[in-house]
Amino acid sequence: MKKIAVLGFGVVGSGTVEVFYKNKEALEKKAGEELDIKYILEIRDCPDERYKDKFVKDFNVILNDPEVAVVAEVIGGVKFSYGYVKSALEAGKSVVTSNKELVAKNGAELLRIAREHNVNFFFEASVGGGIPIIRPLNQCLSANEIDEIAGILNGTTNFILTKMIKEGMGFDEALKIAQELGYAERDPSADVEGHDTCRKICILASLAFGRHVYPDNIHTEGITKITLEDVRYCESMNSVIKLIGFASKRGDDVAVMTCPAVISEESQLSGVNDVFNAILVRGDAVGDVVFYGKGAGKLPTASAVVSDIIIAAKSHGTSKTMRWEDSEQDFIIPYRKLENRFYVRANTDRRTAEEIFGEVRFLSRDGAPDNETAFVTPVINEAEFEEKCGKINVLGSIRVLDY
Amino acid sequence: MKKIAVLGFGVVGSGTVEVFYKNKEALEKKAGEELDIKYILEIRDCPDERYKDKFVKDFNVILNDPEVAVVAEVIGGVKFSYGYVKSALEAGKSVVTSNKELVAKNGAELLRIAREHNVNFFFEASVGGGIPIIRPLNQCLSANEIDEIAGILNGTTNFILTKMIKEGMGFDEALKIAQELGYAERDPSADVEGHDTCRKICILASLAFGRHVYPDNIHTEGITKITLEDVRYCESMNSVIKLIGFASKRGDDVAVMTCPAVISEESQLSGVNDVFNAILVRGDAVGDVVFYGKGAGKLPTASAVVSDIIIAAKSHGTSKTMRWEDSEQDFIIPYRKLENRFYVRANTDRRTAEEIFGEVRFLSRDGAPDNETAFVTPVINEAEFEEKCGKINVLGSIRVLDY
Repeated sequence: MKKIAVLGFGVVGSGTVEVFYKNKEALEKKAGEELDIKYILEIRDCPDERYKDKFVKDFNVILNDPEVAVVAEVIGGVKFSYGYVKSALEAGKSVVTSNKELVAKNGAELLRIAREHNVNFFFEASVGGGIPIIRPLNQCLSANEIDEIAGILNGTTNFILTKMIKEGMGFDEALKIAQELGYAERDPSADVEGHDTCRKICILASLAFGRHVYPDNIHTEGITKITLEDVRYCESMNSVIKLIGFASKRGDDVAVMTCPAVISEESQLSGVNDVFNAILVRGDAVGDVVFYGKGAGKLPTASAVVSDIIIAAKSHGTSKTMRWEDSEQDFIIPYRKLENRFYVRANTDRRTAEEIFGEVRFLSRDGAPDNETAFVTPVINEAEFEEKCGKINVLGSIRVLDY
Repeated sequence: MKKIAVLGFGVVGSGTVEVFYKNKEALEKKAGEELDIKYILEIRDCPDERYKDKFVKDFNVILNDPEVAVVAEVIGGVKFSYGYVKSALEAGKSVVTSNKELVAKNGAELLRIAREHNVNFFFEASVGGGIPIIRPLNQCLSANEIDEIAGILNGTTNFILTKMIKEGMGFDEALKIAQELGYAERDPSADVEGHDTCRKICILASLAFGRHVYPDNIHTEGITKITLEDVRYCESMNSVIKLIGFASKRGDDVAVMTCPAVISEESQLSGVNDVFNAILVRGDAVGDVVFYGKGAGKLPTASAVVSDIIIAAKSHGTSKTMRWEDSEQDFIIPYRKLENRFYVRANTDRRTAEEIFGEVRFLSRDGAPDNETAFVTPVINEAEFEEKCGKINVLGSIRVLDY
């Protein structure tokens, strides 16, 4: 019999407990032994009568109980989580978590501590909710050198962009609906400014390239500047705007960025709508594979947490493949050196656009004012692009990515 | 140092050796120890000078060498493979295979033998080529009860259907191009008659539901009867025709079938074109997840074989989750009891169609002859549908599936 402790009884925590007890019998068969949740750490007074014998308020009860073999951290944030997870690993307990902030910030260290204590630190739920991505990347694609990862990693912003694209709704209105439906927080900045996506692409990049990529070093743009005019122009070239996190191997270095991107309708990422996520992985042997599903929500995230619990419960010793090293960030290419095509909308005329940017592709939309010109530039580096943009009145610009 | 033997040096075998040596250093890091291919079993005289020291013609050399820890079977068919795989497992060697025919036919037995000898029998490459599906289904989604699996599992037929849908090409012409490009065999029946898809959905169903589903018990239809007229009618209802293998849990029983299906353009499966494959998995916690990529080909398949080799090399003892039991086939619902909507094209008039099938939805296409009527029926069971079809001159019918 292996005992489990769940830290936190919020949305994901209560989902984890629900999924565990719903499918307990099948899970035990898969784990090859009996399993039970012994503790639920929660500061509120017994929020669920069914589990009243399990609630504790003091983490030390869990830490000091040698019966607890697996700890599931689903509190979120790093304030409490970091200390809890670290001390659980040091006490020889495996930890599974859905906490992308924690993994993006402290992944290398926590994986090292897990290794030193011959236990596991799993985080399938930290990226893509219930979509299997961490383990497939790490195991099923392990024969490959990974050349590229690009994903729609945030359901909230994808919901907003879908409303703008499919229903012609403005950003503010779409955000309001997302908040009403519970998809966006009252303070939506972590989502709409791209920080959530950034954390997730950092985790995937760290895993794929073996060296920790810290969010603070990654150029990150959100979707707050995207307008319906941009959506229409992109439509005219059979493309859609998506918030993309990408990590790309360039020789020994990597390019990592979070930004809105113009994506062709031919791409598998273009049809990913509403709160769904998708991650494209490009390997040297396998080519492109795409993983698609619900990137958030109570039960999808709990699906990944509970699956990790099962694998942790039946594991003997640390997984050898799941590791990346702490690192200087010198292998991350400064974003201003990267090259892209850009979509540009500006208050200028076609001749001026061509004089500045060279051979551009002009776009059109119904009802455009006379002094508005939209076009796609040739491939150009970021620094040069910025400099050229200084010469005209740019209303909006978005990178054009080929996925 | 773990030694590997590769059985077969055809397309997948040579790809396996190529991928292994290309990424050897990184693979050894992931496996946590040195690895090498010691033998390649091949009846032809040394087909590749680079590996001349490795070629052997007698399987017993491999079987009797205690240094060989992992055997990769990529011969295909069951004639030789079955005996080789069985005796390798009995000799305490782990086996990985890309052989769907072998797994669909003998999976339960070979998994049992692997268990009895505390080794592994892995077959990620047997379904979806390089797309991670076996291990994600088995591990990352293990918290879920699987309700449904539906996939585009055969690249050859998907290529042909894509040519018909996108370019208005007839079946025969599209097949000829597929053969010229090497996507279809000279005798294309295993692909176009649906047998390849059937084997793959049987493997996925066995894994998801824990009981062996044998291909012989599964109703299987191919794409040879699909016409351009059908393609056009389906287009008029924003749908496409795809060859689908599906397995669906209905209480304690399961429905499994391989058939062409009318799929809405809204579905994630509808945009899967050319030789690409995609598999949709519906779990009770995670909802729908979709796995997409190249379902065949030298390097994508080798990607899965080599990844399995790495996992087998670093495993201690049999994986507990990867198992299904042999079984009577009484849990498989006879297909004539299943219910569906059907697309029908017939030489009849609208009134007769309504009299026979009830409230149908009529479809139209440019250039249809006066005596041709096409429509979608209400939900109706297969036996009843067949009986009703006997009353008119049906030119074609296809199931309408909601994925």
